[in-house]
Amino acid sequence: MKKLLNDPARVVDEMVEGYASAYPQYIRQLASSPRALVRRELPPGKVGVVIGGGAGHEPGFMGYVGQGFADGVAVGNIFASPSPGPIVAVTEAVHQGAGVLYIYGNYAGDGMNFDMSAELAAMSGIRTATVRITDDVASAPSAQAEKRRGIAGFVLLFKMAGAASELGYNLEDLAAVCAKANDRTRTMGVALSPCTLPQTGKPAFELADDEMEIGLGIHGEPGMERGKLATADEVAERLLGAILGELELSRGDRVAVLVNGLGSTTMMELFIVFRKAAAILTERGVSIHRSYVGEYVTSMEMGGCSITVMKLDEELEKLIDHPADCSAFTQA
Amino acid sequence: MKKLLNDPARVVDEMVEGYASAYPQYIRQLASSPRALVRRELPPGKVGVVIGGGAGHEPGFMGYVGQGFADGVAVGNIFASPSPGPIVAVTEAVHQGAGVLYIYGNYAGDGMNFDMSAELAAMSGIRTATVRITDDVASAPSAQAEKRRGIAGFVLLFKMAGAASELGYNLEDLAAVCAKANDRTRTMGVALSPCTLPQTGKPAFELADDEMEIGLGIHGEPGMERGKLATADEVAERLLGAILGELELSRGDRVAVLVNGLGSTTMMELFIVFRKAAAILTERGVSIHRSYVGEYVTSMEMGGCSITVMKLDEELEKLIDHPADCSAFTQA
Repeated sequence: MKKLLNDPARVVDEMVEGYASAYPQYIRQLASSPRALVRRELPPGKVGVVIGGGAGHEPGFMGYVGQGFADGVAVGNIFASPSPGPIVAVTEAVHQGAGVLYIYGNYAGDGMNFDMSAELAAMSGIRTATVRITDDVASAPSAQAEKRRGIAGFVLLFKMAGAASELGYNLEDLAAVCAKANDRTRTMGVALSPCTLPQTGKPAFELADDEMEIGLGIHGEPGMERGKLATADEVAERLLGAILGELELSRGDRVAVLVNGLGSTTMMELFIVFRKAAAILTERGVSIHRSYVGEYVTSMEMGGCSITVMKLDEELEKLIDHPADCSAFTQA
Repeated sequence: MKKLLNDPARVVDEMVEGYASAYPQYIRQLASSPRALVRRELPPGKVGVVIGGGAGHEPGFMGYVGQGFADGVAVGNIFASPSPGPIVAVTEAVHQGAGVLYIYGNYAGDGMNFDMSAELAAMSGIRTATVRITDDVASAPSAQAEKRRGIAGFVLLFKMAGAASELGYNLEDLAAVCAKANDRTRTMGVALSPCTLPQTGKPAFELADDEMEIGLGIHGEPGMERGKLATADEVAERLLGAILGELELSRGDRVAVLVNGLGSTTMMELFIVFRKAAAILTERGVSIHRSYVGEYVTSMEMGGCSITVMKLDEELEKLIDHPADCSAFTQA
């Protein structure tokens, strides 16, 4: 895959510079730590919400700093966790005395770096709490949910955290509502084609011209099964089937649905997948309270998509309806 | 390129159904004409703004119906103009007595179908005015600007039209301000890889592994020159250079800048391109009033990007700052 790049070693730094110059209304780049981006205007007194993760998932994670979302983000190298340096820098910049929530995908590297950052923050007198996102049904059996990875459900979880913190939740309550939202969120994805790492110029994995892989991770981690490319409707049934098997949705339940494109899959395809997902939910008497269709968390130009469902309750419905304004997600 | 589809012949209909079920807060699909989508809530009394074009450019054009944007859209087949049926249906649905503006890209098919629709609308007593978008610098020499095609500048032009119509402009003034905005908008693009047509499963054109084509059209129309793949900075210089040669920007001028991805080019690359474009403009003393970076008008999964610059004046600055809320573009 051809890419528009300059120096492959400076890809992430140049991207962050570009982002900071494109969207000064949302974020400022910390001079002391250029991989640390902080929300331009922090509502006074609230608990800070800090996100972070590897680059290569744009508009995640930089795009989710702003009103109703996170207060700061630490940006790692491509598909690699940020180090404690920028995480701590963001933590200190967004801390207003009420503590800081770390919310990120459940990957070993992110866990290690955020945990080290939490220890460093504690030494500076900053209390933190942590929620690890584990929405990927395909990444471990349901009995081992704590081993599951986080994928596109990120976006809805960040939204919950941002909304609740702006509504005045304290640190403990904020962590609790995000943990609840995480428990009620499931994602399942399918990959059709690989992305190419800028550093190596090589594809991250291989799939034959007529193959797809269900549950393949957003960094190319092995999925649940590889099979022949199916129709959009069959894929929607398969992905949603796995989610519905766990969420136990009943007639009258309300959900938020996110159909996420991994990079090179067109919105045309995403809408066709959404169409079937909506039909299946409607047939079961489940009401779609909010829908989101687009590229929210990518794997560079990987081909494929995922379906995320969050089972709402009254509290989560209020949080998902809360206004938001950041570069990747605006809701009036 | 593998695609998630069902019946290739029903791709557009299924996509429109999916869109309508995903975003009922923005649009409703007309029962009498399913390729006609109308804004959910029309502000009373204003001039109607109708857009339209071929499918395959998602989130264009369906995504640009909503607050601060268009009032209705007619959706054609892939890369083909909508027929007068849905255009007239939309026109009648959005007309409130103050006339209707047609604003669309300058392509022969769209021109013919919108002109026929204008005649049909006139028979029903609906006054229309037309603005054809001609922002693509690469598509004809500047002396023949009326032959130029419309590409990503669409988005900013639709925003002007939506904002001005909501601010109470009458039909003549609305057409005039959009024509002025079009005169002050230039786009130049580069393609790196083709898209595949769902009907044929074949790529729309071919480019070697180390080639790019400057000025290639969003339907694969021939560009200005084909050459070796350059760096992101060189591409930004080349694209912006052509634009600056025409817009005659001086120190102190204010612009809006849109870096648009054609489909499979990552946001990482788009931000790197934007970074250089911003540096060039800043060096010239030109102030970037608003930036937009992302996939706004695609050619399915084509690889490449474009840079659009609109030279603002006081009136256009007010219009670009006007709030917007549609599925593809929200601005608080």
